[in-house]
Amino acid sequence: MVNRRNFIKTGTSLALGASIFPSGSRSYRTRNDKLGVALLGLGGYASGQLAPALQETQHCYLAGIVTGTPSKIPEWQEKYDIPDSNVYNYDNFDDIASNDAIDVVYIVTPNALHLPFAVRAAEAGKHVICEKPMEISSDRCREMIAACKKANRKLQIGYRCRYEAHHKQLMQYARNETFGKIKVIDSNFSFYGVNGSNWRFTDPELSGGGPLMDIGIYSLEATRYGSGLDPVSVTAQSYKSIPDKLPGMEESIFWQMEFPDGVVANCGSSYVARSNYVHISTEKGWYRIEPAFSYGGLKGVVNGEPMNIANHNQQAAQMDAFALNIRNNTPILGSGEEGLKDMIYIEGIYEAARSEQKVKF
Amino acid sequence: MVNRRNFIKTGTSLALGASIFPSGSRSYRTRNDKLGVALLGLGGYASGQLAPALQETQHCYLAGIVTGTPSKIPEWQEKYDIPDSNVYNYDNFDDIASNDAIDVVYIVTPNALHLPFAVRAAEAGKHVICEKPMEISSDRCREMIAACKKANRKLQIGYRCRYEAHHKQLMQYARNETFGKIKVIDSNFSFYGVNGSNWRFTDPELSGGGPLMDIGIYSLEATRYGSGLDPVSVTAQSYKSIPDKLPGMEESIFWQMEFPDGVVANCGSSYVARSNYVHISTEKGWYRIEPAFSYGGLKGVVNGEPMNIANHNQQAAQMDAFALNIRNNTPILGSGEEGLKDMIYIEGIYEAARSEQKVKF
Repeated sequence: MVNRRNFIKTGTSLALGASIFPSGSRSYRTRNDKLGVALLGLGGYASGQLAPALQETQHCYLAGIVTGTPSKIPEWQEKYDIPDSNVYNYDNFDDIASNDAIDVVYIVTPNALHLPFAVRAAEAGKHVICEKPMEISSDRCREMIAACKKANRKLQIGYRCRYEAHHKQLMQYARNETFGKIKVIDSNFSFYGVNGSNWRFTDPELSGGGPLMDIGIYSLEATRYGSGLDPVSVTAQSYKSIPDKLPGMEESIFWQMEFPDGVVANCGSSYVARSNYVHISTEKGWYRIEPAFSYGGLKGVVNGEPMNIANHNQQAAQMDAFALNIRNNTPILGSGEEGLKDMIYIEGIYEAARSEQKVKF
Repeated sequence: MVNRRNFIKTGTSLALGASIFPSGSRSYRTRNDKLGVALLGLGGYASGQLAPALQETQHCYLAGIVTGTPSKIPEWQEKYDIPDSNVYNYDNFDDIASNDAIDVVYIVTPNALHLPFAVRAAEAGKHVICEKPMEISSDRCREMIAACKKANRKLQIGYRCRYEAHHKQLMQYARNETFGKIKVIDSNFSFYGVNGSNWRFTDPELSGGGPLMDIGIYSLEATRYGSGLDPVSVTAQSYKSIPDKLPGMEESIFWQMEFPDGVVANCGSSYVARSNYVHISTEKGWYRIEPAFSYGGLKGVVNGEPMNIANHNQQAAQMDAFALNIRNNTPILGSGEEGLKDMIYIEGIYEAARSEQKVKF
């Protein structure tokens, strides 16, 4: 990677075709003609996945950070060559409106903070990527969509799997009916997180729910893009075996969905299990991704044979696609509207589990 | 294999330690000191699985046949060296009472015929193996148990997986809590059989139900012996996408079970899908068999590593275990009581699907 600090250190970047960047935003904006992304919320996903992914992107780059934890700033600036002018806290974040170096704000906060930051980002004239789940209620998702629309800014939800090659293969099989019509889908995404101390496991006001909100949403998503259909009804069952953990959240949840054309799905998600797959049965065969929802190492099988699809950086693909959507004003695969739909179905799943009744959409 | 016909042909069996068998039953009874089994119902499972398995058994052997299809008799007699005296039809079957060559009758008829044949076999003084599902209602299962008890005959249900090495490993993990307490079980057994012409797909009066009765019972069984627990409640959802097929039966069914100690299970079975696994998550790990319910080629994985358990003839293991249960008067793993339990749970699953209400046991 060639960046300003490397150039200063080595003096070789002119030979490599780089230019000298004066401090300030415009230089970054034009660096390799990429869109500038600011990460808002520097937790594990931002530091472990998004920042590294932004070193692999072709159409955008890590230009700035927004954080409520000042102690994190020096390391990020050093590691990713971020100038002071592109560093914000949650108080002065709205000043980002005047910073041309930042085109996109990627919101990586706890779920219930997505809306206020998305509104502020859009009002500051920035395009928005919002991590999944989009928010903690469908009403708040609608507000987010409205705010971005009003500001004429684009909105992407962090649905990395929609941009991943194995999952895109599922979409293609569905579209082409490669193995006939889809009949039954099974999917489960679970991990043993019941003892976690993160807000996802301890603070229902921030998380909006348990494993369904956090990881079950991947299975929900996979049934939708894997079938090309939206569910028409859902039943669900919620369980708890360790009463003093996961306050106000489910521990395990199963849900079943009916789609048009008689397609059905059975899904599960749990913080006391280990499962990570989507399995699709069609008239003429079956295919599966397992692991399906990890950041890498996905394995696809079709009728017992390997799919032989290469893994790649999912978040880089997702962010590059959004950058091109912005550049070319093209439709967004993981749009706010898809995020809203998922939240409507999640609310339906929770309602079905609570009432022990089928919920229709 | 050394049998009478081979001996006659080759003249070598004396050298191999065999004796010359006069025609008639006693000679067969004492052949290698094995118990004599008569197969009742010579369909695909009897011809494709049980008869071959009986060539591998150590403690029992294929001594006789009972069939309603006379045209099948010559081939069976020829292939398996079965004397005329050990061949019965459904009219003269009760004469088997006087045939000492037959110790066990293995009933391999359509489900709704299990009870009457089991009663007749027991009343004829024979021990009974009854293929799964045990019958089409719990009341009929109770009648079968009572009939065998009254005749002081032993009863085994054809639960081959309970005698299979991978599945026995599941039982051991549960018993020893090798990976801590079990938390969540997923299992599905499905195949694309919606277009089948067999009674299983066309005659609900014989089958008593659809895929749940036929193959879903394997998943139900696996949750029970895999946890060492019996369910306390069930929810279920039944679906149909091809209205003119599978008369009076479900096409796909999902069901969820709560067990003591907070163990939960999510299962499925379908005639329009392809799935064949049991996946168990515990406090400290996970393990899976997939394929789980095939006659061979089972593969076990524990925490991502192969179980490295050899496949073996499941039906031979099952029948040999029963022969030893008879010899030694020991408890039967796949007992009639287990068959009854499964039928009670299956009735609960159907009731839960019909009523869309949780059913408690």
